Amino acid sequence: MSLMNRREMLKLGSTGSLAILTAGVSGAVSGGAEAAHAAVPQWETFELVLSGPSSGNPFTEVDLTATFSLGHRTVTVDGFYDGAGKYKVRFMPDTTGDWTYTTSSNVPELSGKTGRFPCVAALAGAHGPVRVRNTHHFAYADGTPFSPFGTTCYAWMHQGDDLQQQTLESLRMGPFNKIRMCVFPKSYQYNHNEPPFYSFERNLSGEHDFTRPNPAFFAHVEQRIADLRAIGIEADLILFHPYDRWGYSTMSAESDDRYLRYVLARMSAYRNIWWSLANEFDLMKTKSTQDFDRFFHIVEQHDPVGHLRSVHYSHVQYDYSHPWVTHASLQTSNFEAAAGWLNAWQKPICYDEVMYEGNLNSRWGNLSGEEMTRRFWLGIVAGCYVTHGETYLDPSLPLDENTTPTLWWSHGGKLHGTSPARIAFLRKLVEETASEMGKDAKRTGFEAQPAAYYLNASTVDATGKVTEEILYFMDFHQPIYYEFPLPEGRFAAELIDPWEMEVSVLPGVFEGKTKLTLTGRPYQAVRFRRLRAG
Amino acid sequence: MSLMNRREMLKLGSTGSLAILTAGVSGAVSGGAEAAHAAVPQWETFELVLSGPSSGNPFTEVDLTATFSLGHRTVTVDGFYDGAGKYKVRFMPDTTGDWTYTTSSNVPELSGKTGRFPCVAALAGAHGPVRVRNTHHFAYADGTPFSPFGTTCYAWMHQGDDLQQQTLESLRMGPFNKIRMCVFPKSYQYNHNEPPFYSFERNLSGEHDFTRPNPAFFAHVEQRIADLRAIGIEADLILFHPYDRWGYSTMSAESDDRYLRYVLARMSAYRNIWWSLANEFDLMKTKSTQDFDRFFHIVEQHDPVGHLRSVHYSHVQYDYSHPWVTHASLQTSNFEAAAGWLNAWQKPICYDEVMYEGNLNSRWGNLSGEEMTRRFWLGIVAGCYVTHGETYLDPSLPLDENTTPTLWWSHGGKLHGTSPARIAFLRKLVEETASEMGKDAKRTGFEAQPAAYYLNASTVDATGKVTEEILYFMDFHQPIYYEFPLPEGRFAAELIDPWEMEVSVLPGVFEGKTKLTLTGRPYQAVRFRRLRAG
Repeated sequence: MSLMNRREMLKLGSTGSLAILTAGVSGAVSGGAEAAHAAVPQWETFELVLSGPSSGNPFTEVDLTATFSLGHRTVTVDGFYDGAGKYKVRFMPDTTGDWTYTTSSNVPELSGKTGRFPCVAALAGAHGPVRVRNTHHFAYADGTPFSPFGTTCYAWMHQGDDLQQQTLESLRMGPFNKIRMCVFPKSYQYNHNEPPFYSFERNLSGEHDFTRPNPAFFAHVEQRIADLRAIGIEADLILFHPYDRWGYSTMSAESDDRYLRYVLARMSAYRNIWWSLANEFDLMKTKSTQDFDRFFHIVEQHDPVGHLRSVHYSHVQYDYSHPWVTHASLQTSNFEAAAGWLNAWQKPICYDEVMYEGNLNSRWGNLSGEEMTRRFWLGIVAGCYVTHGETYLDPSLPLDENTTPTLWWSHGGKLHGTSPARIAFLRKLVEETASEMGKDAKRTGFEAQPAAYYLNASTVDATGKVTEEILYFMDFHQPIYYEFPLPEGRFAAELIDPWEMEVSVLPGVFEGKTKLTLTGRPYQAVRFRRLRAG
Repeated sequence: MSLMNRREMLKLGSTGSLAILTAGVSGAVSGGAEAAHAAVPQWETFELVLSGPSSGNPFTEVDLTATFSLGHRTVTVDGFYDGAGKYKVRFMPDTTGDWTYTTSSNVPELSGKTGRFPCVAALAGAHGPVRVRNTHHFAYADGTPFSPFGTTCYAWMHQGDDLQQQTLESLRMGPFNKIRMCVFPKSYQYNHNEPPFYSFERNLSGEHDFTRPNPAFFAHVEQRIADLRAIGIEADLILFHPYDRWGYSTMSAESDDRYLRYVLARMSAYRNIWWSLANEFDLMKTKSTQDFDRFFHIVEQHDPVGHLRSVHYSHVQYDYSHPWVTHASLQTSNFEAAAGWLNAWQKPICYDEVMYEGNLNSRWGNLSGEEMTRRFWLGIVAGCYVTHGETYLDPSLPLDENTTPTLWWSHGGKLHGTSPARIAFLRKLVEETASEMGKDAKRTGFEAQPAAYYLNASTVDATGKVTEEILYFMDFHQPIYYEFPLPEGRFAAELIDPWEMEVSVLPGVFEGKTKLTLTGRPYQAVRFRRLRAG
């Protein structure tokens, strides 16, 4: 272990977070000897750096893979050209133990390189990539439940650095654990700035060469993914989108596929990635649904980690029943349809666009904070998850969509709305439940009771059968009393005010038909929690 | 003209209202001579009273009709037995002039009676029965627009007299111009009292004789209809309903039909009647949809005035496209479906149950006042009409649905909610428009613009083509500005706060794409009104 690598490890140990573990340098693996690399904690990123040819077009002409082995298990991953004669292979070890690797390439100097590294225990706070658990819910690879409470900053990586730092700070302090964000820069109303980096090399006329990705662009994206990883936020990375003036949305199929493989080779080793094939894929008029089917298959084939995969639409839903889709990513606020979709697809559902809190001139960008808060509650008691977005235009600025103000939804920056605090409150309630469920695979998150008199969802115990917790959201109903039909057992009851963020524990133990006097105010919630003997 | 009739006329002239014009007494038409009756104002009720047999069962054994003539026009109406040897024929003259009549009966002493009366100009405030106008809207027979702003007091006629008087006073002072109410008494949660009158004669064991209507019961209903007429309120009279413990909902088909014909004979001459064949017809398990088809045909055949006809459902919609249905009477708050229904049915739509403002333990009875207000606005900008109901349980009373508190929705009494004042405000806005439209048949009420960016509806001018007025309701949207796409012409603009009931006229004249700075608050409205030259 080199001194440099010891330093890296010490840094990791003290902060509990890290960017990229530079686990080797090209010199270390030259000459055919097996390289011994520094230890890599489980679910962090091992990176092998090799030197190779820089002539011709290394992006298209050089093939590089590496096969990682642990005992009799092997995992083959794609390498990529990072410019300036540097080739890299990244790998996220998911199991502790002594891993070895061997490279393979059509370029002799990159082929047959071997090495080894120990994968050691995960860092504090690292639980692995998020997976589907119990059909409609999510958990990290180590079994820790994950309840997505996402937000949306489509183009935050393509703003000035100060604004990016402010966005990271807002995310660090905010209620969100997932962010929807685009790889490519964005051209749209209120989005007129040029990005700091272009995704591909351009000649002096500004023409793109889609055969030559810009390594600085992708390194920047990776830095932001690592920044999010360090603060425990999942990067729901949008691979294509229609809001474009640079030609990234209308590349040839060959270029699309090559771009995808490049991203997959570079980024799959980040544990906090979710792949969103596109935002509003149906608005990309030069691509067909079959193109997106193919993209899914490329992701399946070239992502060795098997990150979550979905695609987001505008008007025409993608067929989420396809086996290659791990979860639905909806644009709708039709929560009444959730029960049917959950049943049909047998997958988790994220309502990823339910409109945004704000005051924009566009109807998708001017929900009240109350309505955004309500939609989060409706989603949770529908047994689903909801994603936030915010679009507050400063009224003292020009009221004109040809300007480029700072709107959280696209640029990041600061949060101004009233819903984030209420979303934090709801997340805490949901995570209390998730925490009680622990890593037991038989427990579920909230499952809706669609036939119920009022909207409610419940969790079950380790047997998968006994109701543990019931969360009612009364929406616009304001009953002065109601007789709640509790399942068998003894329960504690709480009145919850989602807007005032208050929980009032009702004295007593409740069983059977439980008549409670309520506040007579709308938008209240009630929670029942099973009491244990002793 | 007898002294008694002069008194009646004087009373009418001084109050502008009247109950029943007792236009003749049995003595006046005895002996075969043509009787000369007092004048009847247009759209009031002429009543002929005859003496006949009281033995046997006059309800089933005696047929009586009268044919009224004006020039070459004849109108035949059914008479009815009113008990104690009295037979009556009622007629609502719709045209001024000298009417004559001749009776016909299977009982000689009731047959061949003739008489005449002048029909004179309508009383102030009397505009005739309400008709459909311009496909989706309503107007009185004289062309005056009528925009229904209804409420619901199902069983108010079956409460104690003090409460009925209080209800009438609340209606007189309130914002409503239509009331949904049941002929039969009601047995349901919170409705456990016996009615003051039973609909049919009962023997000492309490068994009903469905061949013998109780004239006192029906006279009482008519008094209430007349009381409503006197304060300008349409009686949306519900002829059947399932909330029953007296057997009225499960009579034989023969009894149902005889009851209907009795009601039609007695009440068709009240100009403020709307026929609602049933409330929640689909919950009447002993009747089929075909039974209701038949009821519609009986009403069509035996109502000489042709009052409005509909039927209300719980879950299964009646087919409102049937030609015998004049308008839809919905139980839903799905306003998004309105455009499709309006187009399919080509009839007015009343959202007659959108749930009720209140605090009841039942989900249909605990909307907030804000939500009820919102639903009225959603209905209007959908080009439809909405009906109110209120169910506030006094929290100091026993919270138990086996009690019989006073709830407006069923018993009448006083209004407690926050929505009625806002409904009054909306009604005023809509009636300003209606008043501008006047009696010109080519003008319409608000027609929705379903493809619009925000919810809005507009009215047209006398040509049927030029937009006169546009009403936007922004619902949960809170834009800080928006560019409204105005049609050709010059408009005034107003910002409207539906909850605060404020109208702010914006200075200036607006044309074309009109960018307005708005409040940034949700649930606001904007109205544009065409400016006339000069």
